[in-house]
Amino acid sequence: MTQPHFPKSMEWFERASRVIPCGIYGHAAPAAMVPTEFPYYAARAEGCHYWDVDGREYLDFLCSYGPVILGHHHPEVEAAAERQSKLGDCLNHPAPVMVELCERLVDIVDFADWAVLGKNGSDMTTWAIQLAREFTGRKKILRARQSYHGSHPWCTPGHGGLIEEDRAHIHEFIWNDLDSVRDLVKKHRDDVAGLITTPFLHPPFGDSELPAPGFLQGVQEICRKEGIVFIVDDIRAGFRLDFGGSHKYFSFEPDVICFSKALGNGYPISAALGRKELRVAASRVFLTGSFWYGAVAMAASLACLQVMEREKTAAHVLRIGQLFMDGLKERAARHGLEVRVSGPPSLPFLKFTNETNLLRQQRFCSEMVQRGVFLHPHHNWFISGAMKETEVAQALKTADEAFGVVKAEFGS
Amino acid sequence: MTQPHFPKSMEWFERASRVIPCGIYGHAAPAAMVPTEFPYYAARAEGCHYWDVDGREYLDFLCSYGPVILGHHHPEVEAAAERQSKLGDCLNHPAPVMVELCERLVDIVDFADWAVLGKNGSDMTTWAIQLAREFTGRKKILRARQSYHGSHPWCTPGHGGLIEEDRAHIHEFIWNDLDSVRDLVKKHRDDVAGLITTPFLHPPFGDSELPAPGFLQGVQEICRKEGIVFIVDDIRAGFRLDFGGSHKYFSFEPDVICFSKALGNGYPISAALGRKELRVAASRVFLTGSFWYGAVAMAASLACLQVMEREKTAAHVLRIGQLFMDGLKERAARHGLEVRVSGPPSLPFLKFTNETNLLRQQRFCSEMVQRGVFLHPHHNWFISGAMKETEVAQALKTADEAFGVVKAEFGS
Repeated sequence: MTQPHFPKSMEWFERASRVIPCGIYGHAAPAAMVPTEFPYYAARAEGCHYWDVDGREYLDFLCSYGPVILGHHHPEVEAAAERQSKLGDCLNHPAPVMVELCERLVDIVDFADWAVLGKNGSDMTTWAIQLAREFTGRKKILRARQSYHGSHPWCTPGHGGLIEEDRAHIHEFIWNDLDSVRDLVKKHRDDVAGLITTPFLHPPFGDSELPAPGFLQGVQEICRKEGIVFIVDDIRAGFRLDFGGSHKYFSFEPDVICFSKALGNGYPISAALGRKELRVAASRVFLTGSFWYGAVAMAASLACLQVMEREKTAAHVLRIGQLFMDGLKERAARHGLEVRVSGPPSLPFLKFTNETNLLRQQRFCSEMVQRGVFLHPHHNWFISGAMKETEVAQALKTADEAFGVVKAEFGS
Repeated sequence: MTQPHFPKSMEWFERASRVIPCGIYGHAAPAAMVPTEFPYYAARAEGCHYWDVDGREYLDFLCSYGPVILGHHHPEVEAAAERQSKLGDCLNHPAPVMVELCERLVDIVDFADWAVLGKNGSDMTTWAIQLAREFTGRKKILRARQSYHGSHPWCTPGHGGLIEEDRAHIHEFIWNDLDSVRDLVKKHRDDVAGLITTPFLHPPFGDSELPAPGFLQGVQEICRKEGIVFIVDDIRAGFRLDFGGSHKYFSFEPDVICFSKALGNGYPISAALGRKELRVAASRVFLTGSFWYGAVAMAASLACLQVMEREKTAAHVLRIGQLFMDGLKERAARHGLEVRVSGPPSLPFLKFTNETNLLRQQRFCSEMVQRGVFLHPHHNWFISGAMKETEVAQALKTADEAFGVVKAEFGS
């Protein structure tokens, strides 16, 4: 019997399994990666470097599934959080930093007149569809098939605990198929409250799909014409494509935009911003939580925005991501392997072309992980501002070896 | 025209109103307290002392609506959070502290076999009703009228943005009326998945109502007999009545218990714990969020639990709350005012008996606030471990003055 690659991870997992259903639930559940081939527990992180509990070090191409856009422990973000923490975090009232952050967000996002803040991404997507219903007096919500908008009953990718009423008025269109949107609008004419979509589609296990030319603009036109509230869920992509929101990158304009993840460089915060016309309706949809005035995450977010703007982080992660993707394609080709790189370069993903055997994909990512490059086999990756050319070169050298292993095991 | 009492609060609120619907939304919305008579923005806090942006200092009897059970900046909690923060917070995987915290929670709560963690209280109450549905294969959820279980569509106290399907299978019984529970169970026989209740009822604007003798035990018996999952929402009261969960204080036993607020002394965290029989169902109801593995709040929570256990914080806040309530009653009587003190002493509330004029209640609390004792006019109060006899004596001296003003203005 071979020793486990990650003995300490396995020990913690065994302990966890006694007191936590599945040991690890949610997006980091071992079954979502490659069980026993990936670490299960985190020890620490710094910049774009990540260490697991077995003391292994990785170049971090996952950024904690997106939040850590500036790299771990960015000094300006940490300093801002610490300053606010010394004053107080969870208080009887909001702190002034809430006003400053909302002012800043409204200033950054071109169409926005107002902002609200929460803790989870789901807090904002759920609230946004309620807002659409309040504004229109209609019920139906359209979303893209295979899209991800959080873990609430109306949108969770899970199957347990749901009842049909949870999704009685949620209808799915096909990404990049404007006719499927038109069909739904026609079918439910005058009863569609809102349409929610991510700026690109990132199905688990699948290639990411960018919007086809005219698709999001077409959606926008339909929404305007039909009085449907057009919501962009920018929780995953936000600030990695354009500092002003991903609608700028893809040249369209929604009515509401939701942010989270990169907004606070890892501090728990989310936001929804909207058009002036929606302000009264927004004031009518109750939203709150015990920690929602938490001032530390807001201070961290304000600092994160300042750094992202000054450092032009969106441009940086796009450029670094492109280098990485180009390099991966080139190295794969050297080994006679065909790969498809998908998604925007700052949230890239790679799959082997025309490969039906999931094990090839898993082997490649496992080999990368074994060699100190942390990638996810079934979920898009993320580039941080802390990632530079040196790290990309190192990751590509590693990829060369990993492709070699894949070639030897699965052929070309 | 008189000067506003809180000029800096008003300035911030004016700025906020330009970029935030309602300026301040949620539980700290000015309309929920006494507009212009209460501060709107927080500057800082320390122990049981709270300062607003106008530099006014208060004895804090609200504890940020519950979370701050040990007082602000408890050194052990802050040190634990800081140690974890230096390692990392939002990481690619959970940190070992997640396992340690769940082990600790399962150890603390007598009937619990497993635990899961989230960020908001609502994350856990919504997940708990999904769990009940998954476990039973039934749809209906029973809750007490006027209870609070969070801000999600199935339970929000707001009215905006709701559709009838949100509550198609949510039914309300009357608190302390076992027959109303029986009636619902009979009416929806074999279709009731779960019953969720707080350990005592705390309606806004109303007196808190403790469980009548036998009520919660009767609910428990009905649930056991009918195969209904009995969920206690201990988010508000948790750790202020009994370190092992409020069911211990009231001598009953649920199947699931939800915590948040005091669990992390202000750090954003929530938890649900359940019986062994529910473990498989729990593993089937997806739950996650970008920040849900956040290790800092978990480390803070572990330290908070340690301090609460060692210092017997539940007993302390019960005792201090009793002193405060007894003192308030006595001082009110001295002025010939009749008051009703309600709720458990650690989450006390006070109203003027048989008073239909809301202004009397508001005047009393406003006068307390003006004199440096922070109380809420329409929401139960909270005692922290940092509150000692000296502060209670000071608050009672202030109450003497406030009762005098009330007597002069409204009579007895």
